[in-house]
This record gives sequence, structure tokens and C-alpha cells, in this order.
Amino acid sequence: MLLFSHMKQSQLFAKTQKNAPKDEVSLNAQLLIRAGFVDKLMAGVYTYLPLGLRVMKKIENIIREEINAIGGQEILMPTLQPKENWQKTGRWDTMDDLYKVKDSSGREMALGPTHEEVIVPLMEKFLNSYKDLPFAVYQFQNKFRMERRAKSGILRGREFMMKDLYSFHLNEKDLDEYYEKAKEAYFKIFQRAGLREITYYTFASGGSFSKYSHEFQIVAPSGEDVIYICQKCKLAINKEIKDKIEKCPECGGSDFKEEKSIEVGNIFKLNNKYTAPFNLGVTDEKGEKKEIIMGCYGIGLGRLMGTIVEIYHDERGIIWPVSVAPFKVHLLDLGQKTEAEKIYQELTNKKVEVLYDDREISAGEKFADADLIGIPWRVVVSKKSLEKGGVEVKERQAGKIEVMEIKKLLEKLEK
Amino acid sequence: MLLFSHMKQSQLFAKTQKNAPKDEVSLNAQLLIRAGFVDKLMAGVYTYLPLGLRVMKKIENIIREEINAIGGQEILMPTLQPKENWQKTGRWDTMDDLYKVKDSSGREMALGPTHEEVIVPLMEKFLNSYKDLPFAVYQFQNKFRMERRAKSGILRGREFMMKDLYSFHLNEKDLDEYYEKAKEAYFKIFQRAGLREITYYTFASGGSFSKYSHEFQIVAPSGEDVIYICQKCKLAINKEIKDKIEKCPECGGSDFKEEKSIEVGNIFKLNNKYTAPFNLGVTDEKGEKKEIIMGCYGIGLGRLMGTIVEIYHDERGIIWPVSVAPFKVHLLDLGQKTEAEKIYQELTNKKVEVLYDDREISAGEKFADADLIGIPWRVVVSKKSLEKGGVEVKERQAGKIEVMEIKKLLEKLEK
Repeated sequence: MLLFSHMKQSQLFAKTQKNAPKDEVSLNAQLLIRAGFVDKLMAGVYTYLPLGLRVMKKIENIIREEINAIGGQEILMPTLQPKENWQKTGRWDTMDDLYKVKDSSGREMALGPTHEEVIVPLMEKFLNSYKDLPFAVYQFQNKFRMERRAKSGILRGREFMMKDLYSFHLNEKDLDEYYEKAKEAYFKIFQRAGLREITYYTFASGGSFSKYSHEFQIVAPSGEDVIYICQKCKLAINKEIKDKIEKCPECGGSDFKEEKSIEVGNIFKLNNKYTAPFNLGVTDEKGEKKEIIMGCYGIGLGRLMGTIVEIYHDERGIIWPVSVAPFKVHLLDLGQKTEAEKIYQELTNKKVEVLYDDREISAGEKFADADLIGIPWRVVVSKKSLEKGGVEVKERQAGKIEVMEIKKLLEKLEK
Repeated sequence: MLLFSHMKQSQLFAKTQKNAPKDEVSLNAQLLIRAGFVDKLMAGVYTYLPLGLRVMKKIENIIREEINAIGGQEILMPTLQPKENWQKTGRWDTMDDLYKVKDSSGREMALGPTHEEVIVPLMEKFLNSYKDLPFAVYQFQNKFRMERRAKSGILRGREFMMKDLYSFHLNEKDLDEYYEKAKEAYFKIFQRAGLREITYYTFASGGSFSKYSHEFQIVAPSGEDVIYICQKCKLAINKEIKDKIEKCPECGGSDFKEEKSIEVGNIFKLNNKYTAPFNLGVTDEKGEKKEIIMGCYGIGLGRLMGTIVEIYHDERGIIWPVSVAPFKVHLLDLGQKTEAEKIYQELTNKKVEVLYDDREISAGEKFADADLIGIPWRVVVSKKSLEKGGVEVKERQAGKIEVMEIKKLLEKLEK
């Protein structure tokens, strides 16, 4: 990741704000706008400012590592998609949140809300033999959905960054095996994003071809979804299908706890739903044509970022987990520029990601901004701290302040 | 960059092809499609396959490093842009390659072909004082332009990845200084992409507010542009404005050479063209409102990639410069799997980017694919090479074959 690893706050154009826009009702967007991570262009459409883009890139890299680890090959498919492909799958007329656009010749196209209509015909060009299977491809790509109500900040955008993974298989057993691998990769991703403890693997409606799909639901008071968590095995059932299910499909338990939650990922066994319309197949060992089946696996990056904010904040601001924080250290100079600059240089040399508040404003304003922005380690250089032999170190999460020798600080943060 | 640093070719789903689609007339897309770098979804709309995405990411990182070095702050703006902003600048009705889309309420939006209409109102929220200036922001973002003829492969897309940088200034002198910095950064980028020798800084029409804009034109027989290169100072003039200019605006020379060329970048002094409609200003030292002026600076990433292919190829395929090659080494196993696997492991351990052709196909097919894909170093492990004491090393560019001890090879490639 070749982002800046350090930055002076005086140079950061996106400043913190006292108030979020009045029409912004969601907590995640309110905090992210006030702290200078995102800007709202219109309902459901946001600009990612320098701090926000850094968080997005960290999330992207966590996901990339885990999807590469299960053999995903990264590609990048287009937004503009031909109407004919959407007609073949029958979704041109049935998907009501599809944005449609015309080119100069009057030809109609869709703005991709998902990419089955691109990936399947693409595979037709490369797949010949059963020996080519299984495999999986994925992308980080900007999606478009015509949301009627876009009131949830970056949790539900009209335009949003998504990781979508597609896997291709000869038979159900093979798909089942990959599905389990993807599930484990997803848990690793949510673990690394600091959310594992409150992530529930959730049975949800599977459409017409598989009994269930699965969602990764994060328990959160602000969630738009409702899940029922089995108190025996800790799997959950989405309210959408709860009526049809009496006992836990996993363990047979019947003691459920209702919780509000946010869906941060979902995985589907699509079977031949999209391969059949495009007649996608390969020749088997006997030289006969054989249908291919598919799985698909999504994570919304903005939604994950917004969820982290919904979970990790207090009345003063955001509390980022280190793994996705825009910087590791927030260095505050309180009138001791020479010493602060020196520490900034040393952290930079050690490649510790640091935001250095070198602005000429009051200590109170600097503390308030640091709490709002929510970088994990706050390091204060003041006359008082230097007299005590070092710097004041505060963990945003724990809130405990400790005076530390500069040498010890550098050792601690380098790890 | 967290892409795979190594890959087995047997697992790469995007295979080479004998023929490009019949409707693909451009050389860059023909080669890139045949070699498995891109796929054409429709005219001017391409998918980047694993090898192609790796090249794009390398180009992106070169640009990112050089733009960060001149103080650019990276952000990410949306594709969907409100009609009102485009009406304010007068471009809603005048820009004829603007894609327009409606949401469910009938509200009209543009698909961003450029981002002045987003960045200027964004700045209104953050800029207060003259002390906030100058600064520059940029993004890598997917652009949309309704091209009437999209026949140039990835050189001219309807949808294309672009780096767009915007700078903000209090006065012309400050803008001029930043403009020079951006120019130098651009030359560094084209230098690193292997194109510096044939890149010409070119005077072009500047619109209504500055006398000239400047383009970075690469001399290429397939270019759609025509430039006149001053034989004295090596600056060039775009044919568009040549009629109005008799002598070189730089040195006064009048001996010009006509060349076909591809525009890979352009830089504009916009002055107050977009800041005035949004009334973007700051208070100066005296507390009075002062207008801000702007510069903008673009590079199309796909266009740069396509240009590299137009320049660096021979009758057998692409010849990537090392800096943007999808891998550094193409390792070919010709029936010596044990030894080849060992070398693959050692290269991987040393973090040398390697594509390992472990497929069970003929030597001829492997050689043909290696030439088509165009990775800088081809390393062949065969019975013959092992008998001679090592591996056969061939530089794609030079074409000279050398037998080398494995130990020496590892030392050589590690550098």
C-alpha cells in the first residue's frame, strides 16, 4: 500500500466539523463527516476524503489477502453492462433498483449492481474442459443500486465499493467445499476488522435454487435487520425466514434471542441460475458437455467501515481498531515544536503511520479532534510531559494516560 | 501492493488466444486480448483480467508515488453527480459526451467524465482563509464518456480509469509554480513507464481562460493526434492550434517535424472557470473575500497501458518495461518439474514476481505464450539447460539467450 505513511495535520485539507449536515440522520455518517473522513454529495453518495480513503484501503487490503489465500484471482469488470446480458437472465425488467443509461445511439445499458451478467459470458471465452475447474475470481468494484431510501449513511449507498467473488464448479460437492472455505475467509476478515465476537453466521432466504443463503450479521442497535440467535450453537436466522423455521437448522435448538443487526457480507450458492441462461459448460472426461454451477460472495467495504463506526465510538468520537485505523499514532504538539518534530521524524523513519497535529490551535481543540478522529494511540508532547521525562501516551480505547520515555514509546509503537 | 507476487500459469483462468475479436481493430487491444490481459465487453468497455490488472496497479502506484511527492492528497469522489452542479458550470447542456441517468424519483444525474463539479463545491466546505492555500487533491477514479467512435482499444474508452489532480491557489504566480511541479512529476511518471524519450510537452488549445493547455504526447504511428515538434527545443504544438502559431512559443524556432502521436496526459490552468460559478473564495489578510484559481491535471491509466503496448511490441507479442510488467520473470518448465518447482520456490521466497508455466503443453506453445505475454525475463528449465549447468535466460527485449547457473540467476533477479 503506497499511501502516505505520515502526514502533518496542518496540511490536511479535510478538517473536522462541529456539525454534520442536518439531513444526515445516521450515526456512522454523522461521525465520519464531522471527523473529516467522508463528505456527502447527495443521499447515498459520498466522497471518501484522505482519512476515509485510508480506512477503505486498509479494509480492501485485509479482504484481498484473505481472498487471495483461498485462491481468488483479482480482476476488474466494468460498470457499463449491455442490456442483452440482463435480458438473458431475466433481470432487466425484474430488478427494480437497476440504474439504466443510454448511449448516443440509443443503446441501453445497466450500471452494474452486481456482475453475474458480465462474469458468466466472460467465462464462456476461457472455459473448455472440466480440467479448468474449479476456480474463483473477484474484484473491488464500484456498484450502483437505485435505493429508494438512503438514510443509513455509508451503510447503504446508491454508489458503493464492493468486493464480489464468484466461484465456478463441476458439482455440488465441490461448490460446498469452496463455500466452506469462503465462510472461513469471511470470519478471518471480520476478525481482523475487530468484529468477530459480534459476527453471526445467519441463515437467510436463498432465492429459488438453494435452500438458504448465508449472511454475516453484526449485532448493532442501529441495525436495519433483525436476527434470531440460537442460544445453543450461536448461529442465527434472519427474520425474513424465521416464520418458516421452528428449530435451528444447524443444531436443532429452539431457544433464540432476537437482536438488531447489520448485514456486512453474504454468500450464495447460485447453482446454475446464471450459468444456464448463458449455456456455460465444459466437456467432461467422456467429452460430453456438462453444466457448471456457481457460488457468489459479497462484502460491501463502505458498509463494513460504517459498521465499525456504529460499533466502535463513544460520545466524543470514533475509536478505530488498529487494523483499519487511518494512522496508528496521533502525535499532538502542545507548544513544544522542536521536540515534537523530532519524534515525528523518528516515527516516520521507523515507518510508523503517524498523523502529526502541528496546528497552532488550543490544546483543547487538539484533544477534541483527536478523540473525534479516533486514532488508536494519542501521543502528547507538552512542557509538562517533557518535565516528567517524556510524552503522554493515551490509548483511545482504554483512555488511560501514561507518561513514557520517548525511547520506550518508539520501541512500543514499532511492534 | 498486496497482489500475488507469484502464480502458476496452470491456475490462471485467462488464457492466451489465437485471435482477437473481429471487430477489434486497434493493435493495443488485439495484443492485450490475445495475451489475456483484457476482455472486450462492448465497444470502449473492457474487463481487466489478472495480468492486465497487475499492469494497471503498477502504473497506478508509479503515479501515486509521484503525485504524493508533489503534495497531492488522495481522495475518492463519486461517479453519480447532481445535475444542478453541472447546470451551474453550464456543462449539463454543452458537454455532448455526458452520460445522464435518472433515479427512482426522476432526479437527473451525470456519470462523471471529470470532477470539477464535485471538487469545487466540496472545497467550499473546507476552505476559509488564505492560509488554507495552496493545496492539491487527486484520485484514481473510473470515468464515463459517451464516445461516438470507440475504435482505439483501451486508448479511448467509454469507461476508463483516470488519475485526476486538482490544485487550488490564491494567485497566478502560485498556480504557475505548481503547474511546473506537476509537469516535472508527469515527466518522471512517463520516464518510469519507459516512455520519456518519446514524450513531447505539447502546446494545445487552452479553452477560454488560459492561452494554452499542455499535453504529453507520445510519438506513435498509430496515434490519433498530430503534433509538430520544434527541432530546436523539442517542444511540440498540437495540430489543432498549429495554424495560429508560426514560431515555437518556447524558443521562437520555426523548424518543425510532423509526427503522429498519442496524448497520455494533459494539464490545464483553469483559473476561475469552475471556482467562479460556485463562488469559491477565501478571506485574505485584510479579511476581504478573494477568489481562488485552479489547475487540473489528468492521466488516463488504460490509455497509458495501451500506449506502452503500441510502442513496445514485436510480431510475436508485447515487450513490457520491467517497471510495469505483470511479473518480472516467466519461468518455463520443459519436462523438469522437480528442478523448476525448486527455482519457483526460491524466486518466491526472494519475493521476485514470477509467473511459472507449469502446464503440460509443448515447448513451442510455452515459448509462443511467453513471447505474446511479454514478461521481461524468460527462464527455461530443460534437460538441455541443466546439462549445461543451469537454466536458459532470455531477455524479452534483447532476445539474447544465455545459460546461467541457478545461483547466479537468483542473484541477478533479486536486484
